[in-house]
Amino acid sequence: MGWGDLGAFGEPSKETPNLDQMAAEGMLFLDFYTASPLCSPSRAALLTGRLPVRNGFYTTNGHARNAYTPQDIVGGIPDSELLLPELLKKAGYTNKIIGKWHLGQRAQFHPLRHGFDEWFGSPNCHFGPYDNRERPNIPIYRDWEMVGRYYEDFKIDLKTGEANLTQLYLQEALDFISKQQASQQPFFLYWAIDATHAPVYASKQFLGTSQRGLYGDAVREIDDSIGKILKHLQQLGISENTFVFFTSDNGAALISAPKQGGSNGPFLCGKQTTFEGGMREPAIAWWPGHIPAGGLCHQLGNVMDLFSTSLSLAGLQPPSDRQIDGIDLLPVILQGKLIDRPIFYYRGNELMAVRAGLYKAHYWTWSNSWEEHSKGIDFCPGQSVAGVTTHTQEEHTYLPLLFHLGRDPGEKYPLSFASEEYQQAVEHISGLVQQHKATLVPGQPQLNVCDQAVMNWSPPGCEKLGKCLKAPESDPKKCSWPH
Amino acid sequence: MGWGDLGAFGEPSKETPNLDQMAAEGMLFLDFYTASPLCSPSRAALLTGRLPVRNGFYTTNGHARNAYTPQDIVGGIPDSELLLPELLKKAGYTNKIIGKWHLGQRAQFHPLRHGFDEWFGSPNCHFGPYDNRERPNIPIYRDWEMVGRYYEDFKIDLKTGEANLTQLYLQEALDFISKQQASQQPFFLYWAIDATHAPVYASKQFLGTSQRGLYGDAVREIDDSIGKILKHLQQLGISENTFVFFTSDNGAALISAPKQGGSNGPFLCGKQTTFEGGMREPAIAWWPGHIPAGGLCHQLGNVMDLFSTSLSLAGLQPPSDRQIDGIDLLPVILQGKLIDRPIFYYRGNELMAVRAGLYKAHYWTWSNSWEEHSKGIDFCPGQSVAGVTTHTQEEHTYLPLLFHLGRDPGEKYPLSFASEEYQQAVEHISGLVQQHKATLVPGQPQLNVCDQAVMNWSPPGCEKLGKCLKAPESDPKKCSWPH
Repeated sequence: MGWGDLGAFGEPSKETPNLDQMAAEGMLFLDFYTASPLCSPSRAALLTGRLPVRNGFYTTNGHARNAYTPQDIVGGIPDSELLLPELLKKAGYTNKIIGKWHLGQRAQFHPLRHGFDEWFGSPNCHFGPYDNRERPNIPIYRDWEMVGRYYEDFKIDLKTGEANLTQLYLQEALDFISKQQASQQPFFLYWAIDATHAPVYASKQFLGTSQRGLYGDAVREIDDSIGKILKHLQQLGISENTFVFFTSDNGAALISAPKQGGSNGPFLCGKQTTFEGGMREPAIAWWPGHIPAGGLCHQLGNVMDLFSTSLSLAGLQPPSDRQIDGIDLLPVILQGKLIDRPIFYYRGNELMAVRAGLYKAHYWTWSNSWEEHSKGIDFCPGQSVAGVTTHTQEEHTYLPLLFHLGRDPGEKYPLSFASEEYQQAVEHISGLVQQHKATLVPGQPQLNVCDQAVMNWSPPGCEKLGKCLKAPESDPKKCSWPH
Repeated sequence: MGWGDLGAFGEPSKETPNLDQMAAEGMLFLDFYTASPLCSPSRAALLTGRLPVRNGFYTTNGHARNAYTPQDIVGGIPDSELLLPELLKKAGYTNKIIGKWHLGQRAQFHPLRHGFDEWFGSPNCHFGPYDNRERPNIPIYRDWEMVGRYYEDFKIDLKTGEANLTQLYLQEALDFISKQQASQQPFFLYWAIDATHAPVYASKQFLGTSQRGLYGDAVREIDDSIGKILKHLQQLGISENTFVFFTSDNGAALISAPKQGGSNGPFLCGKQTTFEGGMREPAIAWWPGHIPAGGLCHQLGNVMDLFSTSLSLAGLQPPSDRQIDGIDLLPVILQGKLIDRPIFYYRGNELMAVRAGLYKAHYWTWSNSWEEHSKGIDFCPGQSVAGVTTHTQEEHTYLPLLFHLGRDPGEKYPLSFASEEYQQAVEHISGLVQQHKATLVPGQPQLNVCDQAVMNWSPPGCEKLGKCLKAPESDPKKCSWPH
């Protein structure tokens, strides 16, 4: 989902009454970011509180390339990384992930080996259908074992767009919450549904109910599900001791537009880019009785903050043996404080841009290559800002492009290099960059090597289902990351 | 103001708490339009309930040219047009205009000759300062006489952006409402402030208070003023019998961006164009005790509907001797009905586009000429949709460009001409166009002739102020309308 997909952020079809209500009862973040303009690195950052360049969710196969964890990826979340659920265990939390894991698919990366107690969902996106010969269909796991595969046991009808997966994930969430409430156990639920990701789907009762086609139908189903989860918490009487946060892992994928793309509102470009449309996210904090209702928050926030904030809520300290990029947002959320901190916009192994206050400096600009663009792959459809949405990687290290995101949220008007405003802002931001780079210790890159042998041929549990497939011989290669 | 300038429509700085509250207590229109992408024709349409091509607020000096009423315009609102205040008089209403009239400036066009009982404001925009030799400063009238001029007696500091005009117009509104309430007289107040128009200004207490610079400061002042007007109605105990409607006369002027331009949210281009950014407007209806709170309305609405709706509220019938384009929105607002009606997008004398349901067909596309564009005049900064935001006037009469504004509010993806969806929608819309054109009787064009002798040299009352200037000899010429 993109920033602009929320009714509260102006989507003209207004498909999110429950999320808008959640915002009216809680706090709406206007300036909340993800740590990467695409899925796997963003999720790894959320769960580790660390930039992907630190936790290994990046590639060095090419400069400034977006990489993620497709089926044939060899890497995944390193054992050395401490995930939020691992830490929450120390405070007695039961941890469940529902939906897309995306932090690696080989056995060593299994979420139950990284702090989660329960899992219902898939290691990857619901791409497909595959033929189970060249490429197997993605498995769905219940805890340690697969219980079926997408398109086989978990139907997705690409013609009609019908699939009831969000309903399954919703029911799983409601059941887990009920169980935890009944046993009076604290819990961490990571409800990581994969809906609105292309190929877009929705359940039958939502098909055709929006003005935006299938994408809007999917947004409506997500919105409805979140409404049901919040209501469930209220009905169980635990809403006042349950902190809920809603956000997204990247901007809307405009390459899928208009049929399956979402909205990034007034922002430039979408998923895959370090422009605002790629990385500014819808975000709502909800905690009745604690968060004042109807708050609007201009704190620069990041998904990595959910790591630090959750630890704080559980009375735990973040690890002190490593750099944590997330900050504890509780003083912001509960006491209305504003914390001065920059936002770093990475694309793969490159720091593309930095925001401090209302200023954003681009050190590199790139949408995608001319070669990809000429194939019709467009991350900025209908948008073109000369010298900004470039199709070659343009370096601006010595004279960054500077935007004022207040007057110009769409990054259309670079400030004059000669202006005093430019010089003051760039001096400040460049100081932050120097400091950041001087202390940066990049992690071992996990997204360099692909091997078809590691695909989901025979996940644990396949024997019981008669769904084990024969893996081809190992043939590790550099993964190809075109953008 | 543009659609995207409302917090409720997603402006990231959220500068409009009072308008958002007005929407929460009333009804927010998502699909509300003006009748022209610029000021004078839009205002003439609002007050007559008729398209500018009918009421004469257009030019035939060039094809599809935007024209308005600058200082040297000879034409104005014809006596044959019936304005809303003229009609409301029959029901005993006292009518006041506060702010910009813009329907002609010669004596015969004075608002008190067209149904208004009181006026405090100017015949034109606050452009200037002028030298009073080549061009006089614009006068401010109280009723029949001028009481001063912009930049002289009504200060606007272009350096700091400070001007207290919106406060003057606010106080005037509060006083008028108090007076009417005290005398138990029904009233129509047309609060036509000219703030957010460039050169943008705000009062001292609002300067520097927004994240968007001067433009955001002006939006905050407007928002604050509207909050005060609504509160005043409530405090006087007349909110439940006062219908209030908020809207704008055209999309945000992106030529003034980023320093003085507003936001059209996810829509294409801005003021001067017939893309959504030029003509879709923020709109809120408020009438406590009558309009259900928090309503979201997808009725296709138009400023011309305020004419018909206001007459309906006053128990009056619209004139039956002429075509009225506005519709009575009361069944929509009070009973939740949806009325099937098209939106016609005119630019000057040309029907550029038509919306029916979620489909919009462009019969002509044009942003502005290459010649103007090469001077840096850009109505679509950062936006470029091939074959759509054209710099030559492109005719599509025989094969209209069709957009689905639900899936594609930004008009970026024309539907395939070969699709069944295209054929069905275009067949329907083309039927509406034929019907519209077959019965259309254009009015005498009022915006063809300019003459420096008609400028505001010696408005009535100038003698008392010692501010009469000598008019040059009459030298009528065709006005120049470059876009």
